[in-house]
Amino acid sequence: MTRIVSLLTDFGLSDPFVGVMKAVILSHEPSLCIVDVSHGVPAQDIDVAALWLSEAYRWFSRGAVHVCVVDPAVGSARAALAARAGEHVFLAPDNGVLSDVLVREPRAEVRRIDALELGLPIPSRTFHGRDVFAPIAARLASGELCFADVGPVHAPVRRARALPAREQNRVIGRVSFVDHFGNLVSDVAASVLGDGVETVEIGERRLRRVGTYSEAEPGECVALVSSFGTLEVACRDGNAAEVLKASRGDRVVVHLAARAPAPELRS
Amino acid sequence: MTRIVSLLTDFGLSDPFVGVMKAVILSHEPSLCIVDVSHGVPAQDIDVAALWLSEAYRWFSRGAVHVCVVDPAVGSARAALAARAGEHVFLAPDNGVLSDVLVREPRAEVRRIDALELGLPIPSRTFHGRDVFAPIAARLASGELCFADVGPVHAPVRRARALPAREQNRVIGRVSFVDHFGNLVSDVAASVLGDGVETVEIGERRLRRVGTYSEAEPGECVALVSSFGTLEVACRDGNAAEVLKASRGDRVVVHLAARAPAPELRS
Amino acid sequence: MTRIVSLLTDFGLSDPFVGVMKAVILSHEPSLCIVDVSHGVPAQDIDVAALWLSEAYRWFSRGAVHVCVVDPAVGSARAALAARAGEHVFLAPDNGVLSDVLVREPRAEVRRIDALELGLPIPSRTFHGRDVFAPIAARLASGELCFADVGPVHAPVRRARALPAREQNRVIGRVSFVDHFGNLVSDVAASVLGDGVETVEIGERRLRRVGTYSEAEPGECVALVSSFGTLEVACRDGNAAEVLKASRGDRVVVHLAARAPAPELRS
Repeated sequence: MTRIVSLLTDFGLSDPFVGVMKAVILSHEPSLCIVDVSHGVPAQDIDVAALWLSEAYRWFSRGAVHVCVVDPAVGSARAALAARAGEHVFLAPDNGVLSDVLVREPRAEVRRIDALELGLPIPSRTFHGRDVFAPIAARLASGELCFADVGPVHAPVRRARALPAREQNRVIGRVSFVDHFGNLVSDVAASVLGDGVETVEIGERRLRRVGTYSEAEPGECVALVSSFGTLEVACRDGNAAEVLKASRGDRVVVHLAARAPAPELRS
Repeated sequence: MTRIVSLLTDFGLSDPFVGVMKAVILSHEPSLCIVDVSHGVPAQDIDVAALWLSEAYRWFSRGAVHVCVVDPAVGSARAALAARAGEHVFLAPDNGVLSDVLVREPRAEVRRIDALELGLPIPSRTFHGRDVFAPIAARLASGELCFADVGPVHAPVRRARALPAREQNRVIGRVSFVDHFGNLVSDVAASVLGDGVETVEIGERRLRRVGTYSEAEPGECVALVSSFGTLEVACRDGNAAEVLKASRGDRVVVHLAARAPAPELRS
Repeated sequence: MTRIVSLLTDFGLSDPFVGVMKAVILSHEPSLCIVDVSHGVPAQDIDVAALWLSEAYRWFSRGAVHVCVVDPAVGSARAALAARAGEHVFLAPDNGVLSDVLVREPRAEVRRIDALELGLPIPSRTFHGRDVFAPIAARLASGELCFADVGPVHAPVRRARALPAREQNRVIGRVSFVDHFGNLVSDVAASVLGDGVETVEIGERRLRRVGTYSEAEPGECVALVSSFGTLEVACRDGNAAEVLKASRGDRVVVHLAARAPAPELRS
C-alpha cells in the first residue's frame, strides 16, 4: 500500500529547499507519496503551523507520517521529536509546534529522535528538514524503522495559547490567521455557539452571522462558520482583511443572545 | 494503471486547503496520482479558470478526472457538476467554469452530483472542494463510482463571453490573462490569422509580430503566438504588463494586411 | 522501481504551465514520480537556476531525470541539451544553465536533442518545456529512449562566473541569491575557510560568525554556514535582506585571521 508523508513548513516554494527534502525522502524509498500540506506558514510562526497541522492531519488516512518544520532554533540544543497518536506519526522540532495536535490527542506518545543512535550523518546546523526529518520520515513511512526505536520518551514543549474568554453574553477570541482570500479565521469554535450568535464585532464593526458567503450582500462583511469549524469573518466578493484593515491576532467579539447556554470555548 | 486527478483552484498555495483536498482524495485511494494544474487562478475569477481548464485538460491522457474549484457561491443552492467528454471527466461547481470545455466538447454529458444519494456526509457550507469534489473525484478515478451514477443529467450554466470582433481589416480582442512573466495572452486565435498580421495595437502602442521572443530587440515589445495558440504581447528581457501598463481585459487590436482572408475568430 | 523526474523552472506556480508539463510527462508514462525542485527561479535568471540545479540534483537517487527550463531564447536556434553524469540525466536549453553541474561533473556526456529525428511534433516557438523537454524526459525516465540516442554529442555553452577572489587576508565574494527568509547566501565556500573567519563584511556592516541562528542575539545579523555549504548572512528573528538592504550580487568580504591558510575558493 502506498504510504504517505505530508509536509508542512515555512520554507515557501520559491527556493529549492522543499524539493531537496523530497529528494531525500524519495531516495530512501521512491514509492512513498509526498503531499504538501503547505509551505506558506508565515516565517517562523509556530502558532499558525501548530493550528494548521492539527486541522490537516485528520483528513489523512491512518499510517501517514506528518513532517512539520518551522524551526527557528535549528542547530541549537532543541530536540527533534517524533509523536504517535492514533495511527498518525508526527515529526517536528521540540518548540511547541505539536501543541495543538497534543491537545486533540492527549494519549500521544512522544519521543526524542536520537539521530546519532539511528546512524544519521552529522546534520548541518541550518537544515534539519533535509538532514534529520526527511530521512527519519522516509524510514518510518517505509516501515524500515519502528516508532519505538526513534529514541527515548520525551516531554515536549507546549505552547500556552490564550483561549477565547467568556464574559457574560460575549465570547472574546482572536483572528488565528488570514487566509488567501482575506477571510479572517478566528479561534472561536462555532459548533458550540449554536444559534445563539447575534452579532460578531471586529474593530469597530458589528457584523451579522450568515450561513454561507452567498447570503451576504455584495461587498458586505459577515461572520460565518469557517471550514475549520470556527467563526470566520468574510467579505462577499471582496477581501475582509483589506476592507476591515484587520490582521492576525485582532480581537473578535461574539455577542450571544441572552438565553444562549454557556459555550465550551475550544473546538 | 495509475489514475490521475488534476486540480485547478483559486485557493493559492499558502493555506493548507489544497493539502487537505489531497488528503481526502488519497484517503479514499492512495494510489491515485494528483497533479496541480494551478492554484493561482485569481480569486473567484471564473473566466480565467474556465480558460485554463480548457487549455490544460487536453494535455492529460484519457481517463483523468479534472477537479476545478472556483466557487464564490459555495454553500448556496448552486449545483455541483460532473461532466464527461471524450474519456475526460470534469468536476466543478455549476457557475460557468466548464463553459470553455463545453465549447470544445459539445457532446459532453453533464450531470448534477447528488451528494445525498451518494452517501456523502453533509458538507460544510464553505469548502465543497474538500467535502464534495475531492471524495467524488477519488471515487470516479478509482472506478468505485460510475459516471452515470453521480446524479441526474443537468443543463449547466454557461458564461457568455465576448468573442473577438472583426471590423474590416482589424480583429479586436482582449487580454485573457497576464502570465507570470508579464506576457499578455489575448483571446485572438493566432492560427487563423496566418501571415496576414501587420501590427498589433495595445493601448497607444503598435507592435510588430515576430516568430519568437529572440527576434525582438532587448526591451522591445512584440506580438507573437502564445503557447495557448493565441496572440500574445511580450517584452524581450522585460515584463510587458509593466512596460505597457496593461492588464487583463485590455483591448488588443490586430491589424491585418488588406488581402488577408476573413479569419475565424475563435481557436 | 519508481523513476523520478525533477523539474526546475522560472515559470512560477500561478499559471497552468507547470501543470501542463506534468500532464505531458504522465501521459507518456503515468507511473513516473515528478518532483518540483522549484518553479521560483527569478524570471530568466540562468545563474540562479544553474546554482540551484547543481545543489539539488545530488540529493536525488541515481536514475533521476532533471529537467531545467529557464529559457529566454526558446524558439531560436539554441540547442536543447541532454547531459548524463554519474547516473543522473539532465535536460535543459543550451544557454549555460548546466554550467555548475558540469563543473561538478567534468566527465558528463552532453548531447543535443534531435527533436526531428526522435519524431517529436514540430514544437511551439514559446514552450519547449511542454513540447520538447517533457516528452523527452518521460521517454528517458521510462527507459523507452536510451541516452545515447537523443542526438549527437554537443559542446555546451558554459557561463563564465566570477569566483570569489583572495586578497591577502580577505576573500571577496558575492550574494548568490536571497532565500525566502531573507538570508543572503554567498558564493564563498565555508568548508575551506575553517575556523579562520574573523568577521564578514557586507555593505558597511561587519558581522561576527556563529555556528547556528540561535547563537545570534534577537535582531542581530550574523554570518554562518548555509545549507549549501557556503557562507550566509542571516538576521535572527528577522529578514537580513531587508535589515541590511542587501540583494543578489552584493559584495561579501570575509576577513580571515592572519594565520589562516590560503583557502580554495570554490566549493
